[in-house]
Amino acid sequence: MLRLYDYLASGNGYKVRLLLRLLDLPFERVEVDILRGESRTPEFLAKNPEGRIPVLRLDDGTYLFESNAIVSYLAEGTPYLPTERLARAQVLQWMFWEQYSHEPNIATVRHWVQHLGVPEEKRALFEQKRTLGVRALNVMEGHLEGRAFFVGDRFSVADIALYAYTHVAPEGGFDLGPYPRVRAWLDRVRDRPRFTPITQP
Amino acid sequence: MLRLYDYLASGNGYKVRLLLRLLDLPFERVEVDILRGESRTPEFLAKNPEGRIPVLRLDDGTYLFESNAIVSYLAEGTPYLPTERLARAQVLQWMFWEQYSHEPNIATVRHWVQHLGVPEEKRALFEQKRTLGVRALNVMEGHLEGRAFFVGDRFSVADIALYAYTHVAPEGGFDLGPYPRVRAWLDRVRDRPRFTPITQP
Repeated sequence: MLRLYDYLASGNGYKVRLLLRLLDLPFERVEVDILRGESRTPEFLAKNPEGRIPVLRLDDGTYLFESNAIVSYLAEGTPYLPTERLARAQVLQWMFWEQYSHEPNIATVRHWVQHLGVPEEKRALFEQKRTLGVRALNVMEGHLEGRAFFVGDRFSVADIALYAYTHVAPEGGFDLGPYPRVRAWLDRVRDRPRFTPITQP
Repeated sequence: MLRLYDYLASGNGYKVRLLLRLLDLPFERVEVDILRGESRTPEFLAKNPEGRIPVLRLDDGTYLFESNAIVSYLAEGTPYLPTERLARAQVLQWMFWEQYSHEPNIATVRHWVQHLGVPEEKRALFEQKRTLGVRALNVMEGHLEGRAFFVGDRFSVADIALYAYTHVAPEGGFDLGPYPRVRAWLDRVRDRPRFTPITQP
């Protein structure tokens, strides 16, 4: 059976959990307490040398890491990953954008607000990440003009990747009020059959 | 004809340039002076709302952004992107790792050293990025034990993505001396037919 090394509050872990449930695939979940260093033990580093969750153990014993690579793997051959060349590349385009321009800002701000507080020496970096997080929301709002989903008007793993940290952005102090298209899109994702919230282990 | 919006010193731009030449695909190159804000004009933001190079204009007028999505698109149907499901996911795994754990550290340190200097208020962040850059090199050295290339012992776009900023890491002050496997792998990439250096427009 598929085994997911996960951390409940993690949006990156949630991407995989959510897709597994949308696809109705059975899996075993292992909670890894990243705040207590459980992703930095020698045993865990043998699964992912970067020391992060999520990691998916496949049936042949292979460990796959990087959330967006894992969801691409799971979505292969399903309606959630297009086979058409350009649409497939655009799904990747938004997933790479998510990991470079969205997650490092919106997820990191949320993590600091929720778990660490903002140490005085990181105040300037925190404010920069807040500014870049707002910019990411603006990019999303602009792209969603006239679109139901991020690529080809079909729900895909690009939407899953972007939903993960966007829907919890308010936990980091981001106000989604000025983003009506983003809010309507979040509702469309929540309306998918077998949708489960991030709080569900 | 394909049109690449590029910046010569950019490793992200170089990934696309290099692959286009390895595949012997003709293209037109447009230099965008990112240091003078040419990637932040309204005209450029209409091509990529994030305001970054590279952007590839396809023959149908579509603009594709995010370097690793562009190289995945170009490599589709070539030996540089596996069709086998797990190998394809592992190529993506290393490309997502590159954009999250390698580029933001190694490329940013190089950019600051080369172009901006390190302002006093960013000294702590600079040192953190240097530390994380060294960690990324260690992860690569570990993975290359017993391997010629990053996935399935076949040269792929994962190697192109990782080559781009690894081979210029010394320009950011990173010493590649302690990484013999990384250095041997860099040589293997340079030995590919039709290889061109980052300095070639």
